[in-house]
Amino acid sequence: MNEMKVLVIHGPNLNLLGIREKDIYGNHDLSFVNEYIRQEAETLGLEVEIFQSNHEGEIIDRLQHAMGKVDGIIMNPGAFTHYSYAIADAIAGISIPTVEVHLSNIHGREEFRRKSVIAPVCIGQISGFAHVSYALALRALLEVSGKSER
Amino acid sequence: MNEMKVLVIHGPNLNLLGIREKDIYGNHDLSFVNEYIRQEAETLGLEVEIFQSNHEGEIIDRLQHAMGKVDGIIMNPGAFTHYSYAIADAIAGISIPTVEVHLSNIHGREEFRRKSVIAPVCIGQISGFAHVSYALALRALLEVSGKSER
Amino acid sequence: MNEMKVLVIHGPNLNLLGIREKDIYGNHDLSFVNEYIRQEAETLGLEVEIFQSNHEGEIIDRLQHAMGKVDGIIMNPGAFTHYSYAIADAIAGISIPTVEVHLSNIHGREEFRRKSVIAPVCIGQISGFAHVSYALALRALLEVSGKSER
Amino acid sequence: MNEMKVLVIHGPNLNLLGIREKDIYGNHDLSFVNEYIRQEAETLGLEVEIFQSNHEGEIIDRLQHAMGKVDGIIMNPGAFTHYSYAIADAIAGISIPTVEVHLSNIHGREEFRRKSVIAPVCIGQISGFAHVSYALALRALLEVSGKSER
Amino acid sequence: MNEMKVLVIHGPNLNLLGIREKDIYGNHDLSFVNEYIRQEAETLGLEVEIFQSNHEGEIIDRLQHAMGKVDGIIMNPGAFTHYSYAIADAIAGISIPTVEVHLSNIHGREEFRRKSVIAPVCIGQISGFAHVSYALALRALLEVSGKSER
Amino acid sequence: MNEMKVLVIHGPNLNLLGIREKDIYGNHDLSFVNEYIRQEAETLGLEVEIFQSNHEGEIIDRLQHAMGKVDGIIMNPGAFTHYSYAIADAIAGISIPTVEVHLSNIHGREEFRRKSVIAPVCIGQISGFAHVSYALALRALLEVSGKSER
Amino acid sequence: MNEMKVLVIHGPNLNLLGIREKDIYGNHDLSFVNEYIRQEAETLGLEVEIFQSNHEGEIIDRLQHAMGKVDGIIMNPGAFTHYSYAIADAIAGISIPTVEVHLSNIHGREEFRRKSVIAPVCIGQISGFAHVSYALALRALLEVSGKSER
Amino acid sequence: MNEMKVLVIHGPNLNLLGIREKDIYGNHDLSFVNEYIRQEAETLGLEVEIFQSNHEGEIIDRLQHAMGKVDGIIMNPGAFTHYSYAIADAIAGISIPTVEVHLSNIHGREEFRRKSVIAPVCIGQISGFAHVSYALALRALLEVSGKSER
Amino acid sequence: MNEMKVLVIHGPNLNLLGIREKDIYGNHDLSFVNEYIRQEAETLGLEVEIFQSNHEGEIIDRLQHAMGKVDGIIMNPGAFTHYSYAIADAIAGISIPTVEVHLSNIHGREEFRRKSVIAPVCIGQISGFAHVSYALALRALLEVSGKSER
Amino acid sequence: MNEMKVLVIHGPNLNLLGIREKDIYGNHDLSFVNEYIRQEAETLGLEVEIFQSNHEGEIIDRLQHAMGKVDGIIMNPGAFTHYSYAIADAIAGISIPTVEVHLSNIHGREEFRRKSVIAPVCIGQISGFAHVSYALALRALLEVSGKSER
Amino acid sequence: MNEMKVLVIHGPNLNLLGIREKDIYGNHDLSFVNEYIRQEAETLGLEVEIFQSNHEGEIIDRLQHAMGKVDGIIMNPGAFTHYSYAIADAIAGISIPTVEVHLSNIHGREEFRRKSVIAPVCIGQISGFAHVSYALALRALLEVSGKSER
Amino acid sequence: MNEMKVLVIHGPNLNLLGIREKDIYGNHDLSFVNEYIRQEAETLGLEVEIFQSNHEGEIIDRLQHAMGKVDGIIMNPGAFTHYSYAIADAIAGISIPTVEVHLSNIHGREEFRRKSVIAPVCIGQISGFAHVSYALALRALLEVSGKSER
Repeated sequence: MNEMKVLVIHGPNLNLLGIREKDIYGNHDLSFVNEYIRQEAETLGLEVEIFQSNHEGEIIDRLQHAMGKVDGIIMNPGAFTHYSYAIADAIAGISIPTVEVHLSNIHGREEFRRKSVIAPVCIGQISGFAHVSYALALRALLEVSGKSER
Repeated sequence: MNEMKVLVIHGPNLNLLGIREKDIYGNHDLSFVNEYIRQEAETLGLEVEIFQSNHEGEIIDRLQHAMGKVDGIIMNPGAFTHYSYAIADAIAGISIPTVEVHLSNIHGREEFRRKSVIAPVCIGQISGFAHVSYALALRALLEVSGKSER
Repeated sequence: MNEMKVLVIHGPNLNLLGIREKDIYGNHDLSFVNEYIRQEAETLGLEVEIFQSNHEGEIIDRLQHAMGKVDGIIMNPGAFTHYSYAIADAIAGISIPTVEVHLSNIHGREEFRRKSVIAPVCIGQISGFAHVSYALALRALLEVSGKSER
Repeated sequence: MNEMKVLVIHGPNLNLLGIREKDIYGNHDLSFVNEYIRQEAETLGLEVEIFQSNHEGEIIDRLQHAMGKVDGIIMNPGAFTHYSYAIADAIAGISIPTVEVHLSNIHGREEFRRKSVIAPVCIGQISGFAHVSYALALRALLEVSGKSER
Repeated sequence: MNEMKVLVIHGPNLNLLGIREKDIYGNHDLSFVNEYIRQEAETLGLEVEIFQSNHEGEIIDRLQHAMGKVDGIIMNPGAFTHYSYAIADAIAGISIPTVEVHLSNIHGREEFRRKSVIAPVCIGQISGFAHVSYALALRALLEVSGKSER
Repeated sequence: MNEMKVLVIHGPNLNLLGIREKDIYGNHDLSFVNEYIRQEAETLGLEVEIFQSNHEGEIIDRLQHAMGKVDGIIMNPGAFTHYSYAIADAIAGISIPTVEVHLSNIHGREEFRRKSVIAPVCIGQISGFAHVSYALALRALLEVSGKSER
Repeated sequence: MNEMKVLVIHGPNLNLLGIREKDIYGNHDLSFVNEYIRQEAETLGLEVEIFQSNHEGEIIDRLQHAMGKVDGIIMNPGAFTHYSYAIADAIAGISIPTVEVHLSNIHGREEFRRKSVIAPVCIGQISGFAHVSYALALRALLEVSGKSER
Repeated sequence: MNEMKVLVIHGPNLNLLGIREKDIYGNHDLSFVNEYIRQEAETLGLEVEIFQSNHEGEIIDRLQHAMGKVDGIIMNPGAFTHYSYAIADAIAGISIPTVEVHLSNIHGREEFRRKSVIAPVCIGQISGFAHVSYALALRALLEVSGKSER
Repeated sequence: MNEMKVLVIHGPNLNLLGIREKDIYGNHDLSFVNEYIRQEAETLGLEVEIFQSNHEGEIIDRLQHAMGKVDGIIMNPGAFTHYSYAIADAIAGISIPTVEVHLSNIHGREEFRRKSVIAPVCIGQISGFAHVSYALALRALLEVSGKSER
Repeated sequence: MNEMKVLVIHGPNLNLLGIREKDIYGNHDLSFVNEYIRQEAETLGLEVEIFQSNHEGEIIDRLQHAMGKVDGIIMNPGAFTHYSYAIADAIAGISIPTVEVHLSNIHGREEFRRKSVIAPVCIGQISGFAHVSYALALRALLEVSGKSER
Repeated sequence: MNEMKVLVIHGPNLNLLGIREKDIYGNHDLSFVNEYIRQEAETLGLEVEIFQSNHEGEIIDRLQHAMGKVDGIIMNPGAFTHYSYAIADAIAGISIPTVEVHLSNIHGREEFRRKSVIAPVCIGQISGFAHVSYALALRALLEVSGKSER
Repeated sequence: MNEMKVLVIHGPNLNLLGIREKDIYGNHDLSFVNEYIRQEAETLGLEVEIFQSNHEGEIIDRLQHAMGKVDGIIMNPGAFTHYSYAIADAIAGISIPTVEVHLSNIHGREEFRRKSVIAPVCIGQISGFAHVSYALALRALLEVSGKSER
């Protein structure tokens, strides 16, 4: 039986992790986070692919490209969370289970960060647990997809 | 006398047509729609060029590139309809008659889809007639441009 | 086989066309527009009936009277566009495919003109192409109704 | 070394689980969910205590009572999510790490359900994964508390 | 002692300058403006690099690339001013003093142009003085950076 | 002693009952409802007169005409509920106890249907019980008017 | 030389004057007001015609009918003040100087009465002086029209 | 054949009836109202149980307890009308036909009293007829439940 | 019998009349307007005193000083119209009949100019008739005060 | 002559005082505050009873129970300040003079804390003076009640 | 040891006290209130200075002049409460503890009176106890300043 | 040839500079800033006059007095920025090029500080560069006025 394949997408400025505003996002840089994600995926028996871009269009292209190739998506949309209806349409269009994640607790920050235009087309949202948010999302995808099998 | 040249721009996720949410957008894919547009254009004696992109920046570049080269534009901005003031500025800047089209009736969908930031700089908007919307837009451009000639 | 029958309804003040605010609505008067509509209808093989009223109640009566008698409606609601939920209810009630049209691009005018309470119950909206808007609506009705037959 | 102790609080109407609106909340009843939570806790080596109430005041009392006795809280505030500033004040007052969970994806439901007055005082929010949301929250508490130990 | 290095970023559609809406933006094209900026920089003893893009992602990439290489940034975000939280996050992340500039007085134009989502993360905003806005921004950067030295 | 006289007014589109949107309004047509009202009135010993119009002006005329002739009014304003301040003024002006009724539960439908500009000048509102709403209103008028006599 | 001709339009429910809410509108009935208007007009050497209707459509018809026949209009739109964009369009369309009058001071009443959708297309508004408001409007029309003659 | 069983719930402060603000709520105290309800129920052949509480949690408990035991509920939520989404969720969860009642006409009082968060999950709302509102609700439940039987 | 005494107050910037924005306020300067007011007053047998200030505090002082000395006030509050609750309180406090006047039709200008915080405490408002507005206000004061005498 | 009796009610989470968020609420715990209140009451010759609850319902019960037994109430509603219309109704219903107090200056904190739904039914509000707020409230009750006696 | 010095500022129209709207502000005039304040101050061993002005600018000047000369300020800003950000800035700038007072309970009056732009920079607000509000404020200043000394 | 004359106006509380909130406005007092402005003016060959007032009316008087005497104005309106439509009218009335300046970046502060009612009538706004903002404004005036000469 094949492994479940998961695509992880980091949105704009997440490549600045560990450099940018450490009081909000912590000290770990993106390579640390990616290594952490890969280990968690391995532990869970998942195949994982990771993509980062500051370009809304590239993220949409990558989402569309995933059709028929991956079983789940973990999306940290960064600031696109709050206005990219185009990414939301892409997720709705490709019909792959997607989990929205955030490093920081967006519900406890500035007013504009509390609203996600993308979450309505995802199966759920996990926000506030630093890099652990991604590990939780991996498990969430595994459990949710596994539900029908039991 | 030269033919009228029209540039058709499909915005983000329109390449998913026929795959994505068929209850809203119908069963025809984008190549069907493009073929339909080309036939309509031929019937009307118009030259037509078609462009699709998921990148806001590429759409702006393409619009600017059209200056002095096309006589009319048909724009389906997809989700950019609702927030891309940058595309609106581009249309206002190049001064080519532009018609905004939508496959679905955006006025009968979610609240956020009812507002277009792009329509105010177009000559008109046609929404709700599936691929026929493009044919109506072709004819609209022809008629409106022809008015001054008669 | 019978011809498709279309009812065209002009709302309040459209009888002032060619007199009223020519910079917005153009120089053609209503009889010109009606003649244009009749010619277009003839070309397309459609039977057309035209009605104008400044009375919201008369428009509702006319809509209800159309049940079982016409195959499509073209409605320019004039200023009723922005507040007549009663006309919207009538259109929803009679279940005849209706296209909302506007001479001017309402999306580029005053804020209050950008919102239609009637469009959500229509199959689509065409706005901004002067009298050509009606011709586009005739064709739209024809195409949309024809879809199921092919 | 002592086990980490976690208090799980189910807010109003969660005792109706499996009975109430199954299309939104699924078929499992609360005893199933509680058993699931207990097994997950055992696997993770956590001590868990579970409490359900339809009374805002009882939930506040229970939160205050937890001071000095538990190391983390998992809170599904049900409908209190949207207006109980009093529960939010209690969580802020007792200074125990708290995770807000929801069975359904509140960001994809009615407008009023998208806003949480409680999330701003929690470390994070997990929403949309049915009973799995609780398992993710248990792990999140473990990881977050464990961070300082490594 | 090394010269201060300044990166100037022109956002979307600024390459249309002198072509687009001259009543608002004036007759000078972008090469004139750039030449003017270079001369002003030379007079002030500043090293200047100029970049224009219609792509939000490219602007973010360019901002990130500037870390450790430039001492100040002048940003005319064009229409991105009003919605690109992603560019704002990039500026906040790279911690280089940034001045927002506008050719026209955005506070005297359409309502949507009066709000900047980027200005809150800049040291200041200069708006309304045509190409002179850039010269003022150069001097502002020089003065502000020089303050601590005196 | 004379019987109490009640005027029942059905607003716009209520003549479409049983035809229009049966999932919302039910299968009974207006003549069924009127017959039901007449029987209820007879049972309660009330004299009843019934009027339907799609014209706001006719409804106002009818209300004014009722002064000194009826003891109570039952008004289903249809879509006029949401914007006809003119009908509200008429009811306030004639000082006859009026009950607003609705077939469907307007508080559970679209946002715009939840607000009545007419209810503030009525003695009460009954909404959601199909044709039974009218019977409840008849009884309400009887009871309320009878209160002072006991 | 001909006399100036003025059309006075009383909107919905003004025929209830002296009956309806005397604490707001005073004790005089409409025939008193009309007589007062006629005497004032005679004193000022004006020809006056008076029209009352509860029907929005009739008021629009009457306005359109006035084109080329009257030199000024005095309009008390009653409750139509607050929502009849159709009457506003009619006034804008016929280009006859129009003064909006109100018996009561609408700026000191309920919130919804403070906004007029009709005043923006009138030359001015007079509100709060009972029947004297009409006399002031007559004089205003005379003075304003007379300005160009001096 | 069994009698229909109805649960009547009075929300907070309704035990103050006849004491509190008599100009709004009238002179009758709660025992009078309850007696009135019991007599009406007897007349209609209904079994009735009455419950009052100032505690939101107790009302939710009582609603849940009613599952499988009563055929209809009459709910006067008092001030909870305006913010208790938890009571609304309980009603939605137990799937027993519920009628919302109010003694006073909430649509003619302060702005905040015009909005009910509970009415959307009820079959209807009756407001403004003092204690008679309860009698109307009893009859409404009877009629609506009876409809399917005839 | 004494003459009626009227105080006319011109608010901020009205001393710029005839200089400032002539397309809105006309060509007449303030001395022309004051002379016009004095002649009208003389014709009507009124004693008039005129005061202009750019200082909110001086206007309040002047209003208070008028107590017991004048029988009516004509107030053109200029820009204070839109925010000076302090002037409104002064007018309410001194209990002298006051008429608010405006040269231009404030209801047809920018959104912020359409709202008056002062009008609610006046007997009426006259707006849009240039200097004639003052003459109408004089007559309004005379008529309204005279009503009780007849 | 009997002493004036005052009931002091502390709302939710006030039992956490001295533990919770000391930077906002100070270092004193609730027993200190209560002792301080008792001493102040003794000094002023007042009898005082103190009650704390985290339950909205218990607070309402306690308020109702006070009828005929106390002469004044001091209420610190905690977070209920912002949404408990039910407590507001209770205070309005029992007609005992009530003063709303807050330890912190709620007008200088988060937006949601600046609005009180309870203050409109109190005689006044005192906010910002830590435990002294209660002493001021005691004196305020004494003075206000004493006014009629002098 | 020197006495504590307190500056009392009465804002616009407070010199009308006892004349103006007695149902809201009571029968006492300002000299009575000032005498009352002086006696209370004497009892408390405070030195007091009292200032009234209708001029926003004079109040700001007076506040600035108080720097280094007074230990506390009591400010009744009158209508300036609702819009004078300039007074708020002055209070924030001079860093003297300030208490905002109101004679009437502003939270129970018109909507616009419920918002204070000044309270956020004060230590607290006391509203609703007629002239007693000032006495409470004197004591509040004394207690709050005294806290650090004990 | 005469020098260009510039009037600098400092609004309310700017005389507190260096005293007030140094974390926002810096350590320099107003005399330092004025000296800095004078030196910059001398360097640029400009004649400069400086005025400070806490009185809105004095600022308006000063603006009006400047007509025909100065060639440019630099205005720091302080808190008047956010509500003084009267100052905005004065600037619009006198037709002298005006630049709005702010010491702090108002776009990054409290919400109410982000909106200027004065900027729409200025040629531009400079905000955020401490005292350097004034130097930039001087140069801006010089450059903008000089444009027509070249």
